[in-house]
Amino acid sequence: MFTYALDERIVLRPLSHEHAQPLFELTELSRDRLRQWLPWVDSTTEMSHTAEYIRGVMNQYASNGAVTAGIWVDDELAGVIGLHAIDWNHRSVSIGYWLGRGYEGQGLMTSACRAFIDYALLDLDLHRVEIRCATGNRRSRGIPERLGFVLEGVIREAEKLPQGYVNHAVYGMLQHEWKRIR
Amino acid sequence: MFTYALDERIVLRPLSHEHAQPLFELTELSRDRLRQWLPWVDSTTEMSHTAEYIRGVMNQYASNGAVTAGIWVDDELAGVIGLHAIDWNHRSVSIGYWLGRGYEGQGLMTSACRAFIDYALLDLDLHRVEIRCATGNRRSRGIPERLGFVLEGVIREAEKLPQGYVNHAVYGMLQHEWKRIR
Amino acid sequence: MFTYALDERIVLRPLSHEHAQPLFELTELSRDRLRQWLPWVDSTTEMSHTAEYIRGVMNQYASNGAVTAGIWVDDELAGVIGLHAIDWNHRSVSIGYWLGRGYEGQGLMTSACRAFIDYALLDLDLHRVEIRCATGNRRSRGIPERLGFVLEGVIREAEKLPQGYVNHAVYGMLQHEWKRIR
Amino acid sequence: MFTYALDERIVLRPLSHEHAQPLFELTELSRDRLRQWLPWVDSTTEMSHTAEYIRGVMNQYASNGAVTAGIWVDDELAGVIGLHAIDWNHRSVSIGYWLGRGYEGQGLMTSACRAFIDYALLDLDLHRVEIRCATGNRRSRGIPERLGFVLEGVIREAEKLPQGYVNHAVYGMLQHEWKRIR
Amino acid sequence: MFTYALDERIVLRPLSHEHAQPLFELTELSRDRLRQWLPWVDSTTEMSHTAEYIRGVMNQYASNGAVTAGIWVDDELAGVIGLHAIDWNHRSVSIGYWLGRGYEGQGLMTSACRAFIDYALLDLDLHRVEIRCATGNRRSRGIPERLGFVLEGVIREAEKLPQGYVNHAVYGMLQHEWKRIR
Amino acid sequence: MFTYALDERIVLRPLSHEHAQPLFELTELSRDRLRQWLPWVDSTTEMSHTAEYIRGVMNQYASNGAVTAGIWVDDELAGVIGLHAIDWNHRSVSIGYWLGRGYEGQGLMTSACRAFIDYALLDLDLHRVEIRCATGNRRSRGIPERLGFVLEGVIREAEKLPQGYVNHAVYGMLQHEWKRIR
Repeated sequence: MFTYALDERIVLRPLSHEHAQPLFELTELSRDRLRQWLPWVDSTTEMSHTAEYIRGVMNQYASNGAVTAGIWVDDELAGVIGLHAIDWNHRSVSIGYWLGRGYEGQGLMTSACRAFIDYALLDLDLHRVEIRCATGNRRSRGIPERLGFVLEGVIREAEKLPQGYVNHAVYGMLQHEWKRIR
Repeated sequence: MFTYALDERIVLRPLSHEHAQPLFELTELSRDRLRQWLPWVDSTTEMSHTAEYIRGVMNQYASNGAVTAGIWVDDELAGVIGLHAIDWNHRSVSIGYWLGRGYEGQGLMTSACRAFIDYALLDLDLHRVEIRCATGNRRSRGIPERLGFVLEGVIREAEKLPQGYVNHAVYGMLQHEWKRIR
Repeated sequence: MFTYALDERIVLRPLSHEHAQPLFELTELSRDRLRQWLPWVDSTTEMSHTAEYIRGVMNQYASNGAVTAGIWVDDELAGVIGLHAIDWNHRSVSIGYWLGRGYEGQGLMTSACRAFIDYALLDLDLHRVEIRCATGNRRSRGIPERLGFVLEGVIREAEKLPQGYVNHAVYGMLQHEWKRIR
Repeated sequence: MFTYALDERIVLRPLSHEHAQPLFELTELSRDRLRQWLPWVDSTTEMSHTAEYIRGVMNQYASNGAVTAGIWVDDELAGVIGLHAIDWNHRSVSIGYWLGRGYEGQGLMTSACRAFIDYALLDLDLHRVEIRCATGNRRSRGIPERLGFVLEGVIREAEKLPQGYVNHAVYGMLQHEWKRIR
Repeated sequence: MFTYALDERIVLRPLSHEHAQPLFELTELSRDRLRQWLPWVDSTTEMSHTAEYIRGVMNQYASNGAVTAGIWVDDELAGVIGLHAIDWNHRSVSIGYWLGRGYEGQGLMTSACRAFIDYALLDLDLHRVEIRCATGNRRSRGIPERLGFVLEGVIREAEKLPQGYVNHAVYGMLQHEWKRIR
Repeated sequence: MFTYALDERIVLRPLSHEHAQPLFELTELSRDRLRQWLPWVDSTTEMSHTAEYIRGVMNQYASNGAVTAGIWVDDELAGVIGLHAIDWNHRSVSIGYWLGRGYEGQGLMTSACRAFIDYALLDLDLHRVEIRCATGNRRSRGIPERLGFVLEGVIREAEKLPQGYVNHAVYGMLQHEWKRIR
């Protein structure tokens, strides 16, 4: 029912129970590409896993306020973007995202990310947003780089993926920076 | 972040933690009118009660899918509309709503209700929507009547309000009816 | 251990863990008749389902005070009658009941119902008791009619049964009425 | 609603939410006598404590099957008797009880206890019932002794009461013994 | 990481998640001997049962303070000793223990028990420690007898084992006694 | 009961309920120094807060395996060291620590940290240990630097302290590195 329109064709919708089927189908379709960078892909083998994941992010929204949304293009689900658990004490949050096969390279995620950063730093008045990408995931790293994030460090062997441990590039954006450059 | 626009000035937003203050202020301002028909008004005496209520409806959304929204007019909170717990076995739900002082008589709630009925009967594919109003609450009863609901009965002394027990007029709308008349 | 005697042969006993077996057997025996009007019959296919149901009503009694009892005739389980969750704010409750094959037409349920209404309106001092029956279930509707309930409305397509959606006749009895007519 | 009649004047009723007031009043009235042998008396200083206790025993009944009852004489609450948590693996249970001021010495508790032992060893088919009394509590010890329990040991300094640690006399009754002597 | 050394070869370690494998292996190896006196042996048929048990004792430690430890000899797991739930009101606790095949008759358990009694009566300042053994389990009874416990009673048919019901010898040790004799 | 000895005078003990008093006293004594770098100090104003914290770390140990210990010098509590929640999927963990007034500058924490790194990387077989310090906290940063950690980045304004937001220096140690240099 509720949406956030990025433009006439692209809208964000908070993930909800009725999205389990399109989300699982998108995962199936994009499995080969996604499994390289997303540790949960190989263990998401039936729709009940996706439904369980949606229940999890809805509960997190209810208890912590951290929202996760589907990205819809011409009413087809194209990907997911969301806040991880908000640290209300230190007023910081990190953002995660992925796109299904065929939706890359069109600037979709950069727009979606901009909306989420606005929400986090302006509406929720958080102090800091972080994006972490595997160092080898050039496409993913392009997003914080285009949006003006600062590369703050490389956390070594931070994540275990099917191909082995990968390093994490950590990008940060502070509220006062975002207010200036957006 | 997420909205449902009724027109250029009026939007619905899912109730969220950051709405506790405007919602409590609206309750304070409208207390005299609201307490006549809403049993929770007299026990909502500080903002933590409103925050607790919001936590409740967010948890209900996460577990049951029943959403509650604020109605915003020119970025001021004007009222609340929401689904009570959805009965997924029998695919039915009831809708509750109220408007703060100064927002009545403008057709706001009829529009908001129409959006929620669309959501319940078309998006969620439920079979039946119910609205129950105290028989003496003429303003509230006008809404299902204008929207074409059928008055199905009068449940006697169903609700205890400060002035005593009141009867409930029960209005029903079925999916196939709504598809025809909307 | 605890009973409520309706007469020398008929007693009510609160449903308890040790009744899972006779209750499941009665369900098995009466399955064909019951499934027409009771939505849970088709999904109660093994004794653990009945045990789970009993656990549920015992927990409801502990937390809410709403009791469910077996009806025993000559020490054989004949049926079930119970309060649904009590609404303590508005002091109202609804009653549900069913009889197994071979126990209909003897006035058993009318007596049992009378005892439960006494309990709800006199002992618990509730204000209103409601009974809802599918409009086509003539036998079930006979009970509130014989006991002097008022037919307050017909809620359309309120319940989904194997044969399709059915309407609900809603019957109500208020405390002051019951005190006069019982 | 449900009762177990010991004779025309004396009935047992499972403790329920609506008994909080008479139970707290009986505690108040009998405080001086009871505190000598019951460790919870000194910390039961308002009715909400009694209500909390009742909630506890009702939850225990729902989850474990161990019931606690009030003893009513001419419709006045006279005392309490109950099963502690049943050990379903080893099929044993212990019984606890107390009487309010003015109700001692009439054989009330011996009758009530007999009913509970019947329930535990015959209806629930448990193997063993235990009663533990402070060695100095002669009145309490009289009950298992009159009922034919075997004194199996004296557990030293097992319970902390206001006057200091006291020894526990442990009495046992086995199912086959009870079937023979009752 | 944390240990309590009984001597150069023997250490106690609090049971932790990483001990599931050696503990299940010890159970497998000793199954024939253990099942005679320990009711859980026959239902512990895969490592997940042992992991579940460990989770249980760790949760009990976190909520109640009652610790359970493995007994390690030359870095091999030899047995288990632990406190059952501590009764903080009456400041008493009971101790349970068992040794795997090949570790009996070396005084291991007497030393381990001495350490646990020190911990319970001196560090935790409890008032009473209890040990209960099946009367026929001579080896197990030797431990409280060697340590100076008092035999306080024989609880008849208290435990159901594969061979039938067995009696429990109850041994007690009070804080002031232990301070004198240790 | 259980300890890990660093040398004859210094031992680690898992934090447990009975440590609430010495831990709160150490906090009181060291409050002025600690509040500069530890966000929880200002809200720890009575012993129940410390008891609640201990309950939290014990529950975390039970559910996640991440242990927290007190550092004891000549049987006086000197400080705390612990694992934050272990990420078992990616096999990484971070370590946090602090010392009370008068215990700095003696190498205590470097030894304690070495023991915890051994435990995490060798006993638990984790892949990566992380230490994060406010960049201005020279004393704290000395520890990972002395132990051979790699400085991997500076996360800007990551933590809110009484004096404002501070940057985090992130230090990492991998299992294969530690096996080589320890």
